[in-house]
Amino acid sequence: MRVLILGGDGYLGWPTAMAFAAKGHDVMVLDSYLRRTIAMETNSEALTPNPNLGARASVFEQLTGKKIEVVIGDCADYRTMTTVFSQFKPEAVIHYAEQPSAPYSMMNFDTAHVTLNNNLNATFNTIFAVMEHTPECHIIKLGTMGEYGTPNIDIEEGWLEIEHKGRKDKFLYPRQAGSLYHTTKVLDTDMLWFYVRAYGIRVTDLMQGPVYGLSTTEADMDERLIPNFHYDDIFGTVMNRFLTQAVAGIPLTVYGKGGQTRGYLNITDTLKCVDLAMNNPAESGQLRILNQFTEVFSVNELAEKVKRVGDHMGLNVQVKSIDNPRKEREEHRYVAHSTGLMELGLKPHLMTDEVVAGMLNKIMKYKDRIDPAKVMPRVLWP
Amino acid sequence: MRVLILGGDGYLGWPTAMAFAAKGHDVMVLDSYLRRTIAMETNSEALTPNPNLGARASVFEQLTGKKIEVVIGDCADYRTMTTVFSQFKPEAVIHYAEQPSAPYSMMNFDTAHVTLNNNLNATFNTIFAVMEHTPECHIIKLGTMGEYGTPNIDIEEGWLEIEHKGRKDKFLYPRQAGSLYHTTKVLDTDMLWFYVRAYGIRVTDLMQGPVYGLSTTEADMDERLIPNFHYDDIFGTVMNRFLTQAVAGIPLTVYGKGGQTRGYLNITDTLKCVDLAMNNPAESGQLRILNQFTEVFSVNELAEKVKRVGDHMGLNVQVKSIDNPRKEREEHRYVAHSTGLMELGLKPHLMTDEVVAGMLNKIMKYKDRIDPAKVMPRVLWP
Repeated sequence: MRVLILGGDGYLGWPTAMAFAAKGHDVMVLDSYLRRTIAMETNSEALTPNPNLGARASVFEQLTGKKIEVVIGDCADYRTMTTVFSQFKPEAVIHYAEQPSAPYSMMNFDTAHVTLNNNLNATFNTIFAVMEHTPECHIIKLGTMGEYGTPNIDIEEGWLEIEHKGRKDKFLYPRQAGSLYHTTKVLDTDMLWFYVRAYGIRVTDLMQGPVYGLSTTEADMDERLIPNFHYDDIFGTVMNRFLTQAVAGIPLTVYGKGGQTRGYLNITDTLKCVDLAMNNPAESGQLRILNQFTEVFSVNELAEKVKRVGDHMGLNVQVKSIDNPRKEREEHRYVAHSTGLMELGLKPHLMTDEVVAGMLNKIMKYKDRIDPAKVMPRVLWP
Repeated sequence: MRVLILGGDGYLGWPTAMAFAAKGHDVMVLDSYLRRTIAMETNSEALTPNPNLGARASVFEQLTGKKIEVVIGDCADYRTMTTVFSQFKPEAVIHYAEQPSAPYSMMNFDTAHVTLNNNLNATFNTIFAVMEHTPECHIIKLGTMGEYGTPNIDIEEGWLEIEHKGRKDKFLYPRQAGSLYHTTKVLDTDMLWFYVRAYGIRVTDLMQGPVYGLSTTEADMDERLIPNFHYDDIFGTVMNRFLTQAVAGIPLTVYGKGGQTRGYLNITDTLKCVDLAMNNPAESGQLRILNQFTEVFSVNELAEKVKRVGDHMGLNVQVKSIDNPRKEREEHRYVAHSTGLMELGLKPHLMTDEVVAGMLNKIMKYKDRIDPAKVMPRVLWP
């Protein structure tokens, strides 16, 4: 299949590209290096070596004989998108091309402005490029479980049947996110839903929880192929940060009470979920929404897990609560449902002690590269 | 009070500016003439004389001795907004500065792109300009009843308490709009709600139905002060189009079955609602949502009303159903609630036969200027 990966330089975009190319798909990646630029701006470079996309594609081709086509360009620029879509004619497009940092989106006007305009226009251009050039192309869009926030009712899979005054209708599940970044994904969802209704495009929205890990089948072949693994406060998700802190001998920084609870998944399961979505496409005129996580943990549970496994490995892990830089509930109910991807065939890779130990071992190779200045929160919500 | 009116050249912006100036407020209007530009592009100029803002402000000042400050600039450009907010320091900002045409938003990539980026960035810049320069300033944002769509349950006033599996929470009322223009207002609402929660700004979102009329206390002083009255398919709301068709002897163009039902209001009530919202501001950290309409009509009921009154005046009005250019339900339930503005003191000006006759009489003065080419739909939903 011809697969276009928008944001193909990212933590998930690049390993997705390799996994699909390894399976024999024709893969093109498009990326503007926005994440690299922001990482330099904010002193948040990834832990592991991070050759540019062209260099990585060369390494991958030498090792596998498979080619990944690389285009450096801006998904928020329609000229670029229309050129890529009209020439490559993708049958599926995986849309990761968003500014993905919640703290960055909350720094100031400029970072918020970039987040809003990059994310909305990347999605908007994807919709129009598909409608103009490849109307049958399946759009697989990465949303986030963060769109739902932490409501007092069960989180259903994208939709909610509402009974009100004795009458019923079905709506998008109510969304209320905790950062501008997460809010842009709410806006994306609203926009995609409109164009699905109006033009009959086919869309899968993967509502993903925080991802952890740095090992995939292809990434394990060569360290230059490792997904850009972030442990900083800007791009690092909590589990990746904790693992790195444990290795560096820095106390794990729990924000506030640590009762913040979310659905998590292993990076290998992200690749599997995207693959399942692609092989079982949404219908024309369907916005299919799938909640993408495999296990639910509180921040305290993650910290305990890393401490237990790390201590067992002789790391002497400390855990320290610090003032929460974010505005969020620190103790709350969290019941989220996720059956769609299991029904499509997902077999979760759970966060066992072996998995945690494996990640710690891998990070230890890069211990000298850990910069303690990067792990403390630098962006405070108002 | 120092009142800044964004989109102050518009059908509602300009009469609001005059009404507030007449009451003794310090009024500044900011407008980029986007609507005038689009009107020229699409051959959709207004029916009545439409001097530029500076010229209108001069006429108004000569007649009343009251000054309206005019700034021509783009609300989607933050440099402009930060300059205006830091110098004028508004206590209330009325945000009308959106590309308001549903058909224009559905024409092609470029018109959709302008609609999305103008509307989202105007709202985004308003939020940031308030946070940066005037954090106590009350944002009064014009939303639209169209954000709610035509659900199968009662339309409540902005919010909905949802009971699900025995538990309860309160959310924004579900929104699903029928055009990209209306969808941008859904995105605005989501974004405003996020910044209200995160930063404690004060916002009133007026969910307005279609407005009709061309007469306000101040506009009646001189024809050069009349709000730009549109009867074309791009900017003309249905009632204004019907009135003009009746005067021109063109059959009233009912789209499809004509059962499309909405809440309407007289332009004088728009001014009153905005005034009531301003004099009873939202609290800090409150997103107050008010449904702004006074009566509910189907398209067929509007056509019958115009025909009855018009025939009585000797106009011999014909009504003709044409293929619906839009994708929308033509027969549906519509029960929408609106009590907030009544509680604040709104006394509706209903669409009596006298009111209809008054509008027809006023439009007759401009009969020679009616261009029949402008009334038929030129934009088809896919």
